[in-house]
Amino acid sequence: MHTVKLLLLRPNYYNNWENFELEGWVDSNRGNNKLRFINLNDGSTVKSLQIVIKGTNFDFELLDQIKIGASIKVTGKIVATPGSKQPIELVASQIQLLKNTDNDYPIQNQEINVETLREIPHIRHRTKTLKSAMLIRSVLAQEIHKYFIAHDYFLMASPIITSNDGEGAGETFNVSDDSKEPFFGLNKKATLGVTGQLHAESYAIGFKKVYTFAPTFRAEHSNTKKHAAEFWMVEPEIAFYKLNDVVNLADHMLKTVIRNTLAKCKFEFDFLEENVDSELRARLDLFINNKLSIIDYTQAIKELQKVKDIFENQDIEFGLDLATEHERYIAEKLFNGPVAVINFPKAFKAFYMHQNDDNKTVAAFDLLVPGIGELIGGSQREVRYEKLLERVKELKIDQEDLQWYLDLRRFGDSGSSGFGLGFERLVMYVTGLDNIRDVIPYPRTTGNIRM
Amino acid sequence: MHTVKLLLLRPNYYNNWENFELEGWVDSNRGNNKLRFINLNDGSTVKSLQIVIKGTNFDFELLDQIKIGASIKVTGKIVATPGSKQPIELVASQIQLLKNTDNDYPIQNQEINVETLREIPHIRHRTKTLKSAMLIRSVLAQEIHKYFIAHDYFLMASPIITSNDGEGAGETFNVSDDSKEPFFGLNKKATLGVTGQLHAESYAIGFKKVYTFAPTFRAEHSNTKKHAAEFWMVEPEIAFYKLNDVVNLADHMLKTVIRNTLAKCKFEFDFLEENVDSELRARLDLFINNKLSIIDYTQAIKELQKVKDIFENQDIEFGLDLATEHERYIAEKLFNGPVAVINFPKAFKAFYMHQNDDNKTVAAFDLLVPGIGELIGGSQREVRYEKLLERVKELKIDQEDLQWYLDLRRFGDSGSSGFGLGFERLVMYVTGLDNIRDVIPYPRTTGNIRM
Repeated sequence: MHTVKLLLLRPNYYNNWENFELEGWVDSNRGNNKLRFINLNDGSTVKSLQIVIKGTNFDFELLDQIKIGASIKVTGKIVATPGSKQPIELVASQIQLLKNTDNDYPIQNQEINVETLREIPHIRHRTKTLKSAMLIRSVLAQEIHKYFIAHDYFLMASPIITSNDGEGAGETFNVSDDSKEPFFGLNKKATLGVTGQLHAESYAIGFKKVYTFAPTFRAEHSNTKKHAAEFWMVEPEIAFYKLNDVVNLADHMLKTVIRNTLAKCKFEFDFLEENVDSELRARLDLFINNKLSIIDYTQAIKELQKVKDIFENQDIEFGLDLATEHERYIAEKLFNGPVAVINFPKAFKAFYMHQNDDNKTVAAFDLLVPGIGELIGGSQREVRYEKLLERVKELKIDQEDLQWYLDLRRFGDSGSSGFGLGFERLVMYVTGLDNIRDVIPYPRTTGNIRM
Repeated sequence: MHTVKLLLLRPNYYNNWENFELEGWVDSNRGNNKLRFINLNDGSTVKSLQIVIKGTNFDFELLDQIKIGASIKVTGKIVATPGSKQPIELVASQIQLLKNTDNDYPIQNQEINVETLREIPHIRHRTKTLKSAMLIRSVLAQEIHKYFIAHDYFLMASPIITSNDGEGAGETFNVSDDSKEPFFGLNKKATLGVTGQLHAESYAIGFKKVYTFAPTFRAEHSNTKKHAAEFWMVEPEIAFYKLNDVVNLADHMLKTVIRNTLAKCKFEFDFLEENVDSELRARLDLFINNKLSIIDYTQAIKELQKVKDIFENQDIEFGLDLATEHERYIAEKLFNGPVAVINFPKAFKAFYMHQNDDNKTVAAFDLLVPGIGELIGGSQREVRYEKLLERVKELKIDQEDLQWYLDLRRFGDSGSSGFGLGFERLVMYVTGLDNIRDVIPYPRTTGNIRM
């Protein structure tokens, strides 16, 4: 199907096309009683196509009534306009107003700040900033699927409603219905999943390379720029992989996906560079064209100690659970780009991570990026039944609930590794937008369930 | 990466490959002290690769201990074996037992019925029937994404937790957390979404062609073969589309996705035809090679009246909400294949459907398939504000909750159409398995939240 995006990318191909038809929404409408210019956006890109209206065919008084946001159908001739700002325009032979906008349509010529736009999530994607961000989001998501399809991964649907609390973090939403009998049975816990990992592990044993791409939930009452109650996670899990394999996978997947998204969303990155972050492409290019940095946690702590005065939390020693300020220092100042920190103290990491021989650390990694901090967290899983059980008991996790998971280790599981990518954080990193509320269509946070 | 699937599909390419390495799980292990055959499955296909072990290199007593389900790593030479049952085998030079299975590993040589397998969802995908079904499920899901990517669709993430009950059916799960203050605010409803459609409509106005592919939830206490509390839905929504456009889209999308899946899952369809449904491919071929049948609801009622005696519910007249028995008669007997029933009585259809000029019916369609009944339900949306509001009031839906949705019609929405495909029903149709519990990894139904 022909789109404005294709027209703009291939003006010579479309040049002189007669009776070209296009439906879309009006971005601007200006001119006089003899000559009008309507910019038409069809959602394929943030850019619009200029429609030129002239001649005696038209009722210019009626045309003057077409407002921003109205949907129209135009027919006309495509004319390449080399040398001008836009490479192509459409000289209309016919215009049909399909539906106008009422006067209280919130998007007008003046700019609206992103906070105000959050009040109208059903409309805001029709502004240029949100349109650019959401187009990039969609392409990123599709490129992630394409990456895993191209590499023969099995797409796993881990359950959303679960009786397991995968991370042991406890911040889960409860699920219930209005009937007298509990839907899932008496005394059964039913919560929204915080991760699909444990179930994905069971499928990696049998399908070898699997991934999930699904919504996950945290009932975190914190109100920060990077936390939402509902967000999408990408979780690959690969049997026979060790920590370094899965760090390499994270690096290769991210670079491939970002490179392809840059190529596909030229106009959106142009817009965001002009209006949000002029360094956007330079920063992404630096990442995709360089080897991923890797640093041991213990070494990272030494580096942080050297500059401890700049941090709010200055209690920097082995055992510190890195806060965003530390993560950002490592990514932004120490490495000026993404970096994988590996081998964290086991004390603050999840029970299922492979325990290293030093008895202090686990084979985990966090991938930190400038501006965000943690983008990915992953690990090699503990495959030794006794070691795993020991951690379950130490952390007072209900063994009965997790016996099925422990049993995998008795049934031909020789180890797997995987990671979780917070998808909205990736969208933030790639678009340069700094609030998670602006990179997901209908954000859910404490106190906000709008629409 | 090399997989068993590739080896079996391209034996001549791999023939004589030396030092070929492969990791996977043992399907069978037989032989004596001089010659053993181990079938190795790597999850790329339901088929296994035969490993031949002979010579003085090996400790045959140790090899005899390798059990079904164990994970091993083999190295050896690939040898094409034209004329024999399998086109290729691997003559081992080395075998490494990575992890054996304990004696209580539930999958042994004898067959296990699907009901028993439902008790062990973390293991059952390692049987041939479930492995075939799940591989086909994964390919179907990926082909759906590929279809929409190829046709320039925007991938929409509608919210899962919502304050809107899209279908007005009322069978929703409630979401809460354990804190004293309600997470989303006092007096705020928070439920799990039954559809992503309403929010997808808002994005179709602006992005034109969008789709969701996400979990949806129904707190239905009915215990049938085709209902689950948690299932995945594919919901495209396209601005400017009318009913016939979206029926054509459903038809084209299904045919493309099924055709590609048939091509990719040869061995899995072979297995299912031998063991589950010998007519499987014949039935699917019939669908993908023929024009979709379309019948008006009013005409369908006349056809049902002719044979009313065969039905449990014989009260067949205009206004009947078709039950599965009626749907299956129409698909199986009347058309012997998928059929779209269009223009249903408005009385039992959702409020948002376009009201036809007859004042009795709405521009809706159900796509019925043999064996299942309804696979897809869709409609042209009511774009006239007053008509839509009228239905909202008639059905006593809370207008305030839906004002944002009504407002779309005042803001340049000139109409859209879309449908919902119950993804697990598609997997049932394509695999021939007749219970939804066997086509989703960890099924959730009344009383069942296992693992």
